[in-house]
Amino acid sequence: MITVGVLGGGQLAKMLALAAAPLGISILCYDPAEEACAKQIAPVITASYSDKNALKAFADSVDVLTFETENISPEIFSLLEGHKHLFYPNEEALLISQDRYLEKECFHQEGVKTASYEKIDSFEDLERGVARLNMPCILKTRRGGYDGKGQYVLRSSEDLLPAWNALKGAPAILESFVPFEKEVSMIGVRSQEGEIRIYPLVENQHEKGILRESFAPFEHESLKQEAKAIIEKILLRLNYVGVLTIEFFLQEGTLIANEMAPRVHNTGHWTMEGAVTSQFENHLRAITGFPLGDPSPRGYSWMVNIIGEELSQKELMMVNGLHYHHYGKLPRPGRKLGHFTCNASRLEDLKRMQKEVLEINSRF
Amino acid sequence: MITVGVLGGGQLAKMLALAAAPLGISILCYDPAEEACAKQIAPVITASYSDKNALKAFADSVDVLTFETENISPEIFSLLEGHKHLFYPNEEALLISQDRYLEKECFHQEGVKTASYEKIDSFEDLERGVARLNMPCILKTRRGGYDGKGQYVLRSSEDLLPAWNALKGAPAILESFVPFEKEVSMIGVRSQEGEIRIYPLVENQHEKGILRESFAPFEHESLKQEAKAIIEKILLRLNYVGVLTIEFFLQEGTLIANEMAPRVHNTGHWTMEGAVTSQFENHLRAITGFPLGDPSPRGYSWMVNIIGEELSQKELMMVNGLHYHHYGKLPRPGRKLGHFTCNASRLEDLKRMQKEVLEINSRF
Repeated sequence: MITVGVLGGGQLAKMLALAAAPLGISILCYDPAEEACAKQIAPVITASYSDKNALKAFADSVDVLTFETENISPEIFSLLEGHKHLFYPNEEALLISQDRYLEKECFHQEGVKTASYEKIDSFEDLERGVARLNMPCILKTRRGGYDGKGQYVLRSSEDLLPAWNALKGAPAILESFVPFEKEVSMIGVRSQEGEIRIYPLVENQHEKGILRESFAPFEHESLKQEAKAIIEKILLRLNYVGVLTIEFFLQEGTLIANEMAPRVHNTGHWTMEGAVTSQFENHLRAITGFPLGDPSPRGYSWMVNIIGEELSQKELMMVNGLHYHHYGKLPRPGRKLGHFTCNASRLEDLKRMQKEVLEINSRF
Repeated sequence: MITVGVLGGGQLAKMLALAAAPLGISILCYDPAEEACAKQIAPVITASYSDKNALKAFADSVDVLTFETENISPEIFSLLEGHKHLFYPNEEALLISQDRYLEKECFHQEGVKTASYEKIDSFEDLERGVARLNMPCILKTRRGGYDGKGQYVLRSSEDLLPAWNALKGAPAILESFVPFEKEVSMIGVRSQEGEIRIYPLVENQHEKGILRESFAPFEHESLKQEAKAIIEKILLRLNYVGVLTIEFFLQEGTLIANEMAPRVHNTGHWTMEGAVTSQFENHLRAITGFPLGDPSPRGYSWMVNIIGEELSQKELMMVNGLHYHHYGKLPRPGRKLGHFTCNASRLEDLKRMQKEVLEINSRF
């Protein structure tokens, strides 16, 4: 039995473990947090990401290494020297996607449109950058930000100094503001043998920087082909193995790449019921050498995140065909506690389900 | 978080645990076997079914009790005196389905057609029974037989004594032979509040007494209505909560009830990908007080058991849309090691997949 080591033991690791069991794959997670929710169904080593001995023992006991979060220190690769060959996706993919500047450079080099951007290492860089990009623009830490954290919108010259001070010297990037009409994303997966499969485009809505809901598939043939060509270029460029997610802004009919995530992604949770093969299963298939599964959608899907507070699970489960996913985490403001997915083969049936959900909770 | 205790820790318990995690339900299994495969994803207490202290500690630490096998001694209820109210399905349902004679009597009392049968407690009973039912007929132990074990086909008078001796005094039942055209089955589920949902009819094929494959849905409107009425009667009669399976012979267009299983069932494994809500999720919904989920089929499904020897998992997973379920058990002749399901929204696509599977392994 092959064992996959997962750095991180949150809900993504839990859902990977749920997809692993039917394939005959064992999962072993590694997470510094005592309450890591993957523990509910998989063994989790509780230790710091800087604990070299624990990391080494972890890596020695698995056949393949992957991660459920890109917010792990790049040092992990020096601590895991000698195990780098086990990593899928590889070190380069992780390092690039951890760093907003390298990420933009990667897109740029592959001819993929992004917002205009400037590397910011000093206050002078910031002043020059703002002059070039014009306001409003957004100052972001290059590393460590997620769910809207570490981002500062600059609207007037008075915003510069407070934003700069808030960075506390962290390397940053300045990005022009994209007045987008929609946010869409795409997930691609590449196997060890180089086989590539692509999920459909998904439309997403964020609230306070956190994904609120996704709708799949977002049906637009030419955009789909464009996004597919982009993700294929990035997969090849990075010699990537596993699931890769790219988020785009849609501005005047054009795809503007926003960021990539080298992992299974919240915008792909709908695939559990809404695609023939889920993103979790396909990531595992890719990194363990199995052939990839069919990413085709099964009808229409609407995925909604449960954030900060528990909803009435029982009431929601009364909606015929609604699938509830409880992560088993304690409620905390802004925390993703679960999600639910409605799926139907006909769009009108999905709309009827959405209406029923809204009657239960008008927030959605 | 609600905890469901499962007596048994085999593949059915494993698949229950996989369905429990997204609902926020914890699973605790109890199995005498050291190698119980549910251990891969759920805690399992390893102790004998006659260990009163271990059983009591187990029952004390769960909110609801269920079982994945009806082959547990009826003594369990006296050992678990004081916890009987936690059992779903209830004691009566287990006792009846454990005993082929009581089972037939239950069907008979509800006006459900079965093969003719006689209770056999002595060799004289057997001689009288054979005279009444005519040969060929089948002598079966009332208890403990499954997958064709404990069954003796009687074709001539010389077969009587060896069959009788093989019983070693176990209470038995003699059944007339049903020259059936097809074997079909149906799964129903009833909630604590009395809500009933019914899965479609399924066509099954057995090999040496073990289920080989299932095809769903078996489309025949009047038979479906007939089977639905039967399962509803039995659910009500037993004040049943949870998933109940009834297997039928189809003889000259008539349903002949063969047996019932008070649990999730191999003939319902296709529901994992092939129905909106799986039998495992619906059993858990029923016994924990959640509303029941939609049992509607999603297209057409073909489920094949992997028996005795491992197949080429990698090759089979090349069939686009095939879902592999590895139980993580050691190979042993006649042992169910896993199953796979092909699913497609159109029948012609399923047939194409079946052809691809046959090209990989002509055995199916």
